[in-house]
Amino acid sequence: MLTSSGKNKELFLGIDGGGSKCKAIVMNEDNDILGTGISGPGNPLHGFEQATNSITESAKLALEDAGLAHIELSELVAGVGLAGVNIPVLFDQMSAWKHPFKTIHLATDLLIACLGAHDGSDGAVIISGTGSCGFSCVDEQYTIVGAHGFPHGDKGSGAWFGLQGVKQVLLSLDGLVPPTLMSNVLLKKLNCKDDTDLVEAVASQKATFYAQQANLVFDAAEQGDKVALTIVDEGAEYINSIARTLTAKNPPRLSMLGGLTPRLKSWLADEIKTNLEEPLHAPEVGSVIYARQQQAKQAVQQSA
Amino acid sequence: MLTSSGKNKELFLGIDGGGSKCKAIVMNEDNDILGTGISGPGNPLHGFEQATNSITESAKLALEDAGLAHIELSELVAGVGLAGVNIPVLFDQMSAWKHPFKTIHLATDLLIACLGAHDGSDGAVIISGTGSCGFSCVDEQYTIVGAHGFPHGDKGSGAWFGLQGVKQVLLSLDGLVPPTLMSNVLLKKLNCKDDTDLVEAVASQKATFYAQQANLVFDAAEQGDKVALTIVDEGAEYINSIARTLTAKNPPRLSMLGGLTPRLKSWLADEIKTNLEEPLHAPEVGSVIYARQQQAKQAVQQSA
Repeated sequence: MLTSSGKNKELFLGIDGGGSKCKAIVMNEDNDILGTGISGPGNPLHGFEQATNSITESAKLALEDAGLAHIELSELVAGVGLAGVNIPVLFDQMSAWKHPFKTIHLATDLLIACLGAHDGSDGAVIISGTGSCGFSCVDEQYTIVGAHGFPHGDKGSGAWFGLQGVKQVLLSLDGLVPPTLMSNVLLKKLNCKDDTDLVEAVASQKATFYAQQANLVFDAAEQGDKVALTIVDEGAEYINSIARTLTAKNPPRLSMLGGLTPRLKSWLADEIKTNLEEPLHAPEVGSVIYARQQQAKQAVQQSA
Repeated sequence: MLTSSGKNKELFLGIDGGGSKCKAIVMNEDNDILGTGISGPGNPLHGFEQATNSITESAKLALEDAGLAHIELSELVAGVGLAGVNIPVLFDQMSAWKHPFKTIHLATDLLIACLGAHDGSDGAVIISGTGSCGFSCVDEQYTIVGAHGFPHGDKGSGAWFGLQGVKQVLLSLDGLVPPTLMSNVLLKKLNCKDDTDLVEAVASQKATFYAQQANLVFDAAEQGDKVALTIVDEGAEYINSIARTLTAKNPPRLSMLGGLTPRLKSWLADEIKTNLEEPLHAPEVGSVIYARQQQAKQAVQQSA
């Protein structure tokens, strides 16, 4: 029985740890978001110490933001969704973490995004931000499409669109493909005089750099640039194929998430566009939903 | 006048400094190769100190190999061809090097490859190894096609073919493209059970890793695999377009160089294949040719 002081009420931490930042929320049992915190990369692919530091730091910031700085991390039930933990060695490493929380429930970033988008019910999500992938959860069966990383995968992502744009600009500056509207825009954006400058500017750049060049591909496509249109069509067709693979699993709802969604959505096939439904919650809320679902399961198992 | 002891005879050092190794030869005035040496990366893109250390070390090894360990580096006229020095900031940095040689003549890896292939005469080269590019030198006019780097450029290179193969295997394991002969070969080669293993194996890999996967694309294409054939045709067509751009400059000779040449050559367009002539010398010999040409020019200027 709960006391009026609320001392027996549980507090939940929801973590969405990605390659560029780690987002945290603190929620109460009534699903109110009490505070939020953001720290550095939370993806264990970039190192265990970095990831665990980011998770702890974002959690403390969220407590502070909630006016709950006096609450210890050891009082929080944590749902932690992390990119990279679909790789077994990283899942094992994170599971072995001597974490500071009351309990921890570890899931992939894909699962928490899906749980968040569909308020804990079955469904599917297409994600296109810096990377790309598809994920569905139907009758406790998970399907992953893509999520392979850059540059070998992540077709239809911001990084992919940006890379295709840069490639075509370089080829057109060599006269090997038709000139494109993207050339001058890219040279100007990167403060380059010519292709030698451009080669220097893009040398050794990573996915996040290329994702920052995605918008100019869409801008050029919308102005009718044929090279850009071909890129956009190819990327959109890959996202269509993810959507079709997910739809075949009969998810009750399908949502699209990620920073490229506003640009990319209108280029998808009509039957896919019209099927997309708005995500109900953010992924970090999905982490709390996951933690509460796992708690409920354990309670059932213990009472059985 | 030369003395019989040969003391006034000059010794030449030829350097071919690339991203994975630095090759050195010592040659006499009669163009005999007296010794060779190989050290680590000589490309200043990977750092000035690394590059200059590799050049000095390979030079010492070449002198040793020639039985000339008693000769000082300060007695050598050096021709130094380096990847990366087409980028002005790297050219300036290398030019400012307080080098240990008698004199130094700095050129791009492309120019020395071309001078070597055509014994110092005008001509053009297509290079496909880890990277790809085209270069011609006709009437002292240079043309560069490609040489943009990976993954944004270097189409038709070993790294490009390997990356395309890995991409298609990942897509086929997701069921988004037809299955390919390459899948099992790649999984076995990289000791992977499934696509999760494969994603882990290729995470953050660089151009050299992908170049090592190029052969399996050609193997599969030669066995009729349609996906591999499409890749090989696309890469070969890019190399054809480089060849056509170079041929338009009317070079007296056209050669193809680089580690992928034996696999790629037979896939090129007939009119290009039949036009290719064997390179006459290696790029490091081209460096010595460059040094001697520059010496001759300076002598003419001084006597004028």
